[in-house]
Amino acid sequence: MLVVGERINSSRKGIEPAVRGRNAELITKEAKDQVDAGAHVIDVNTATLMDEEVESLKWAVQIIQDSVAVPICIDSPNTVAVAEVLPLCKGKAMINSITAEKERYAKLIPLIQEHKPNVVGLCMDDRGMPDSAEDRIRIASGLIRRLTSDGVPIGDIYIDPVVTPVSTDTRYGMAVLEAIEAIMEGFPGVHTICGLSNVSYGLPKRKQVNQMFLVMAMTKGLDAAILDPCDRRIMANLITTIILLGRDKFCMNYLAAFRQGKFD
Amino acid sequence: MLVVGERINSSRKGIEPAVRGRNAELITKEAKDQVDAGAHVIDVNTATLMDEEVESLKWAVQIIQDSVAVPICIDSPNTVAVAEVLPLCKGKAMINSITAEKERYAKLIPLIQEHKPNVVGLCMDDRGMPDSAEDRIRIASGLIRRLTSDGVPIGDIYIDPVVTPVSTDTRYGMAVLEAIEAIMEGFPGVHTICGLSNVSYGLPKRKQVNQMFLVMAMTKGLDAAILDPCDRRIMANLITTIILLGRDKFCMNYLAAFRQGKFD
Repeated sequence: MLVVGERINSSRKGIEPAVRGRNAELITKEAKDQVDAGAHVIDVNTATLMDEEVESLKWAVQIIQDSVAVPICIDSPNTVAVAEVLPLCKGKAMINSITAEKERYAKLIPLIQEHKPNVVGLCMDDRGMPDSAEDRIRIASGLIRRLTSDGVPIGDIYIDPVVTPVSTDTRYGMAVLEAIEAIMEGFPGVHTICGLSNVSYGLPKRKQVNQMFLVMAMTKGLDAAILDPCDRRIMANLITTIILLGRDKFCMNYLAAFRQGKFD
Repeated sequence: MLVVGERINSSRKGIEPAVRGRNAELITKEAKDQVDAGAHVIDVNTATLMDEEVESLKWAVQIIQDSVAVPICIDSPNTVAVAEVLPLCKGKAMINSITAEKERYAKLIPLIQEHKPNVVGLCMDDRGMPDSAEDRIRIASGLIRRLTSDGVPIGDIYIDPVVTPVSTDTRYGMAVLEAIEAIMEGFPGVHTICGLSNVSYGLPKRKQVNQMFLVMAMTKGLDAAILDPCDRRIMANLITTIILLGRDKFCMNYLAAFRQGKFD
């Protein structure tokens, strides 16, 4: 299970001023804390800084890479940001995200072919957001076929089914879960990834909803998630779910987490 | 989701002496507390009392029925106990359990045909406990076919796939989950049920493991569980999972539970 740490996002409280003020101490602490808590990749998003997004992203990526040894996920819908920052990334970066939108796809694919990052493929096309499981599966299938025919190894593709709020329509939870299952079964070797928090939009006790959704999505085959690894309960649930999926040999990782006090 | 409250079991601390001493106050409080917490059925198990099991079960069932309006689940491997207690049950009782063991099946089926209770069908046969998902599916299929050909409506059958500890073999979690999915898909109208606690046997922080397993099993189609409804976290998780499965229209039940403080 790949954990992408989501905390360095300028829409989160305290991050935008820290980025704007070039507070390297706070940003590198956020990176180190996430790696210590179990993140395998650090997501960086400075989209709220608008005109200053690209310069801020460059600065943040460089200081984060100086402080932790894990790859960066460049999180921006702005293809210019990806073009400018991807060449600065050490190791195998991740980009979040490409979509089936014609213009966005065309701008990103040469960068992907040159730098070979892991690629989050978001289930959106020029018609907009998906509604049903079928929409998600159709867009994902097209995107996987196109990316692989453009030379992207299937194991570098992380399909994001686009999580939408169950408070808007209670069918949305199952739509995402069914899409994850169908994509993982239909395209062996591909990955699925999602952010959790949209699912609980509009409901009270959002963390509780997000936590259960992660366990359910993992049960359907989800093998990567963008989440806050410093949320102890979500990480405890993730570690526990992995034993129950039969992917923690002799429960060694679970027992180590227990000894480290991760369930207290 | 059918919740069978498991607390009145003589193997639980305090229950055996209460039953032996005919402490009606304690036993009826346990029944009421479980119904208040969301139990739809009250399981009663006095098996540890050995020679006194049957008389104890009769006493307990009668006082519980006088105090709460929900059905009883007679929980005993002893066919004599079922024969003596089933006629005393009000409404549609549940029996836990019939199996594919020849002798046990033959003794119970006439009682089931006469009294028409809901029936837990445990995936065991004369060869013993199941190991793989395939074992469970094979035994369940045979049991469902036999029960229905003996006149038991499919909607009265609750298949228990037999939960075995992941500490013994990490494949056991998925074996149960896959069996639940296959049984629910293969026999429309049948139910699946399980107790949770065996899954975590031999591990630390057992409640954490049991809680995650319930969410995973519900994701695979489980529609009944034998659990402690007074465990607030397990019930909060259950209520949350139901929204995400699309089975809580307008999230009404979730919002009511929130207003009642069930997530605090």
